[in-house]
Amino acid sequence: MARPRYRGVILDLDGCVYVDGSPTEGAIEALRRLKSLKVKLLYVTNNPELTSEDCVQRLKSIGIDCDASEFLTVGEAIARYIYSRSGPSKVLIIAGPGVEEYCRRLGHRVLDLNEWEEADYVIVGFDREINYEKLTAGLRALLKGAVFLGTNPDAVHPGKNGPEPGSGAFIAPFKCMTGRDPIIVGKPSRIIMDIALERLGLSSREVLIIGDRIDTDVKAGKSIGSDTALVLTGITREEDLPKIPPELKPTYVFKNLYELVEKLYP
Amino acid sequence: MARPRYRGVILDLDGCVYVDGSPTEGAIEALRRLKSLKVKLLYVTNNPELTSEDCVQRLKSIGIDCDASEFLTVGEAIARYIYSRSGPSKVLIIAGPGVEEYCRRLGHRVLDLNEWEEADYVIVGFDREINYEKLTAGLRALLKGAVFLGTNPDAVHPGKNGPEPGSGAFIAPFKCMTGRDPIIVGKPSRIIMDIALERLGLSSREVLIIGDRIDTDVKAGKSIGSDTALVLTGITREEDLPKIPPELKPTYVFKNLYELVEKLYP
Repeated sequence: MARPRYRGVILDLDGCVYVDGSPTEGAIEALRRLKSLKVKLLYVTNNPELTSEDCVQRLKSIGIDCDASEFLTVGEAIARYIYSRSGPSKVLIIAGPGVEEYCRRLGHRVLDLNEWEEADYVIVGFDREINYEKLTAGLRALLKGAVFLGTNPDAVHPGKNGPEPGSGAFIAPFKCMTGRDPIIVGKPSRIIMDIALERLGLSSREVLIIGDRIDTDVKAGKSIGSDTALVLTGITREEDLPKIPPELKPTYVFKNLYELVEKLYP
Repeated sequence: MARPRYRGVILDLDGCVYVDGSPTEGAIEALRRLKSLKVKLLYVTNNPELTSEDCVQRLKSIGIDCDASEFLTVGEAIARYIYSRSGPSKVLIIAGPGVEEYCRRLGHRVLDLNEWEEADYVIVGFDREINYEKLTAGLRALLKGAVFLGTNPDAVHPGKNGPEPGSGAFIAPFKCMTGRDPIIVGKPSRIIMDIALERLGLSSREVLIIGDRIDTDVKAGKSIGSDTALVLTGITREEDLPKIPPELKPTYVFKNLYELVEKLYP
């Protein structure tokens, strides 16, 4: 039986396209082939530090041709989600600089910490600049009724020198202090995936969701009913495959992006 | 029936003896009377910022006579607990300066963040100097097998200008990142209460545990089987009393320390 040739693919970046600043095996050739076949590409990342322009720089520096319009970061997704809910809003940000940049671009007012009382939204995620004043301002804004948004729930992520705190670790104190759960916008939430589909102008049946994490990428793909492909170049290893719960089994498993393209776009 | 005259009392500080830097109503007279009756006093606090000497200064500044030997802080309790488990140890501290001070006094080695690999213990609690580097070092030390200690579980505590993050909010990211629960040393844990009894040289039947919090002070008293007294000068209000679960009902409820002494030591 012929395998479907998806008209678009939504890809993760870290662990899928690159690892530690180097392209994964065959990624450059694979992405070039997809482009030559006019498959629509959208890179979707939960990294709240980056803008699309930052992503372009990263990929170009490792030899992958791309354009800012091919990226959707969690920062942009959050800024758009807030806009779609409430128009221009007042936001208190306890997350990386990418979130702040997109909130400004979309016309939201980024509050100083001492303006917490005005916050419509508190956005929390990975934040290298976390401190006590942010914990206090965020707590008070949430208690006053601001909407609680989280970038993504990952507790830990692999770093160059060992494990690093993930966005979930920054969200945890606010959950503890308020007893509330955030609305997660990044993967595995369908919020960012719906924005991604809209950006591509394709339906969920027409796209393949590709990534290296079951709990993030594959789960996000399943949330919108798309087919999913797991690549083994990142966090998930061959020996992890038997442990994947049935409801999160990906449609395909490939060694890397090159094998994916070889099999699905021969 | 005559009420027992406890030979010792273990008191909380904030919300019980003082609020916002002022003595609670009648506290000075109440404490003076207890001393004149030779009742043994021990102030026990979960505040990881303070040393006993800091506490003496605070109480003296509001007119309460006291001596450093009458205080047990969570910092001292943690340092003693570690010593009793493993002798002089290597500790990574993500908590207030009181903890560090006592760890040094008891001969533990207080590690720099970049020495996380050597940690026998990671101690977490309220920390005004929390930052990303501490989250990362603590995470890695715990993953390498260090024992996880928490000062106390309170998520929030009332501050002068509004609610502030409690120790629980600082513990939360490490629970999230490691999936582990800390050993809590401060109230309501019986670890600090057992150290308190030993310090007083009294049995649990001979002491009364006094405080303003059900989930901390009363629970701590119950953990060692002592009688407990709730005073309404702090966080618990008269209208909260019906909501107290049966297993946490205090032995007595008093408006303040003055009423307590009037009724129990007439």
